[in-house]
Amino acid sequence: MLNNTSNSFSFTVKACDPVTAARAATLSTPHGEIETPIFMPVGTQATVKALTPTQLEELGAQIVLANTYHLYLRPGSDLVEQAGGLQRFMGWEHSILTDSGGFQIFSLADTLKVDDEGVSFSSIIDGSHHRWRPEDTMRIQNELGSDIIMQLDQCPPWPSSRDAVTQAVARSASWARRCRVAQQNPQQALFGIVQGGTFLDLRLESIERLLDIETSDDTGAFEGFGIGGYSVGEPHAVMLETLGEVACALPADRPRYLMGVGNPTTLVRAIALGVDMFDCVLPTRIARTGTVFSSEGRLNLRNARFTRDFGPLDSACHCPTCTQFTRAYLRHLVMSKEILAAVLLSQHNLFYLLDLMRRARHAVLQGRYGSFLADWESSPASHDF
Amino acid sequence: MLNNTSNSFSFTVKACDPVTAARAATLSTPHGEIETPIFMPVGTQATVKALTPTQLEELGAQIVLANTYHLYLRPGSDLVEQAGGLQRFMGWEHSILTDSGGFQIFSLADTLKVDDEGVSFSSIIDGSHHRWRPEDTMRIQNELGSDIIMQLDQCPPWPSSRDAVTQAVARSASWARRCRVAQQNPQQALFGIVQGGTFLDLRLESIERLLDIETSDDTGAFEGFGIGGYSVGEPHAVMLETLGEVACALPADRPRYLMGVGNPTTLVRAIALGVDMFDCVLPTRIARTGTVFSSEGRLNLRNARFTRDFGPLDSACHCPTCTQFTRAYLRHLVMSKEILAAVLLSQHNLFYLLDLMRRARHAVLQGRYGSFLADWESSPASHDF
Repeated sequence: MLNNTSNSFSFTVKACDPVTAARAATLSTPHGEIETPIFMPVGTQATVKALTPTQLEELGAQIVLANTYHLYLRPGSDLVEQAGGLQRFMGWEHSILTDSGGFQIFSLADTLKVDDEGVSFSSIIDGSHHRWRPEDTMRIQNELGSDIIMQLDQCPPWPSSRDAVTQAVARSASWARRCRVAQQNPQQALFGIVQGGTFLDLRLESIERLLDIETSDDTGAFEGFGIGGYSVGEPHAVMLETLGEVACALPADRPRYLMGVGNPTTLVRAIALGVDMFDCVLPTRIARTGTVFSSEGRLNLRNARFTRDFGPLDSACHCPTCTQFTRAYLRHLVMSKEILAAVLLSQHNLFYLLDLMRRARHAVLQGRYGSFLADWESSPASHDF
Repeated sequence: MLNNTSNSFSFTVKACDPVTAARAATLSTPHGEIETPIFMPVGTQATVKALTPTQLEELGAQIVLANTYHLYLRPGSDLVEQAGGLQRFMGWEHSILTDSGGFQIFSLADTLKVDDEGVSFSSIIDGSHHRWRPEDTMRIQNELGSDIIMQLDQCPPWPSSRDAVTQAVARSASWARRCRVAQQNPQQALFGIVQGGTFLDLRLESIERLLDIETSDDTGAFEGFGIGGYSVGEPHAVMLETLGEVACALPADRPRYLMGVGNPTTLVRAIALGVDMFDCVLPTRIARTGTVFSSEGRLNLRNARFTRDFGPLDSACHCPTCTQFTRAYLRHLVMSKEILAAVLLSQHNLFYLLDLMRRARHAVLQGRYGSFLADWESSPASHDF
């Protein structure tokens, strides 16, 4: 049994599927145990949009993600620190992961300059200028007080030239080293991030560079690994060509987190390839447009066929929305632009993914993830990716 | 002890305050008992904006109001009937009151024609033309299946000439008679509505006409009375000049419902004058702009002084928002335009009024509403009206 314990964190693999690379593990943080595979709802501005922490608990969420870039700009990481950290600030007593902010800087900034030392960018809120070195995002995430923090990395868009991706791999590795040196807070786990785009050799080089840091420096190991740079616009099949080899090239004794992926089918497939953790705004974002995951595939409640449909949203689902409300009522809320539509549909979509992860874990523990995957692929729900 | 039982409804006065006209009663409907004085959250489109039925229950809501005009236009009262009625449609198992739709027709319609037979108006959604006679709103509210339904009335704006108000009183009385004749569903209580603007003699004439219908016709009594035509723009003090005499001129054995009033101080004062029921969009509407009721008076969280205020919204309040979140966090949600701001502030504002009603009732039951009122008038919260 694989077991990695570092400071206040541990990762214990409970079972490996005999047919696929799927695994079930327990990740411990200072704020509780997380059973993997796990989906992490995204709470960009220290709130998972439309839901209370109590509702998130009732859905079975075990860890949420918050965005360092947004919280740094508003309300400010110093204010969050003064509030006693993110958990106390947002009233969520369980684990929290923060990203480095790098992804938002690269994708949202109007003005952006990146060099080997760091990034300069202007605020989307007030246009003010900011300069982040790798050490700055460590300090900011330290102020936020999350359990798991991410290194600053450079995520190239798709498609990018091999040269551009090579440079991003080198720069991300250099920043990983500086983050690992800077981050010495025993209450926070630091994840290194694999880049390399769709080039398998660059992906493997990226992993090698991260592992080099662990062995050559005296600063300790990474407590886990993010797999970044996927789901940035490339076709679904292109990601799957390399993801399996990338995941399995990462140390088996630490969690593997596929960043920014949230459609059900990719989750099911990525678990088979050895991935443990996921996050994405997809479930809550599509909920706000009236769209839901379901065992029949994705549904948009604006469709007139739901007008007098007095059945549940998804008859296979046991979430609070599906057990209390009809499609006709939910469609009425969507058409009336009612806030409650966002609440109830976000609730359903998050439960859908969280429950999918629970069932996936159960299948791994029973050694039947291969048939779980096969069942999924032959179901109408598999069209959702 | 006053007791009025009609069909599936009863109204039992439990206590009358010795000093004021305040009273504590129990109103029974087919969906439960309501302890008065009571505030009814408004669920315009079959949803109290931003809140789930479960959250409403946790706040202690006993009855909600839904708007006939809006539900008639979307999703249609026939659809609500097909869903099994409003309760089943919106997942709220307790009592529901619907208004007649008249107030929205008069205030929202682009094109409006009113005559003694009824009103013609065009839809705010698609411009389609509609004609309602008093019998139509009875039929529509019957399809909606609410517990308490309101007569069609004509509510003149403020200021209106004595002639205009006289005509509205006569027309409302004529429509009251027709509604009383048309409404014979034993599962629904019909409330007549008092009009008369700020003219006390017209108010008393309006009441006399309603009571005439009960004695001269063979159609049964009104199960309660709405006091309409106040809070339509007149100064607060002007309403209070006549409200007490109006309330006490109504039969003591039936509930008195002051329509469209929701600020805490007016509620406290109106209870002293003998009013039992209230509704208003105010608590949820101001919540969506970042404004809350509090024991310190009304607060707007956009104010910069709350930026680093890590205390509760209202230290005197026990609602889920005040016990779990700080002013700094709530302000952050407001400034970030997060949906959760609307949820948490609506929750607080409704709890604030519901709890105020519970405390008012308790004071009446203990025979000390006079001192309850005096305490309120000397508190900072009394500035809120």
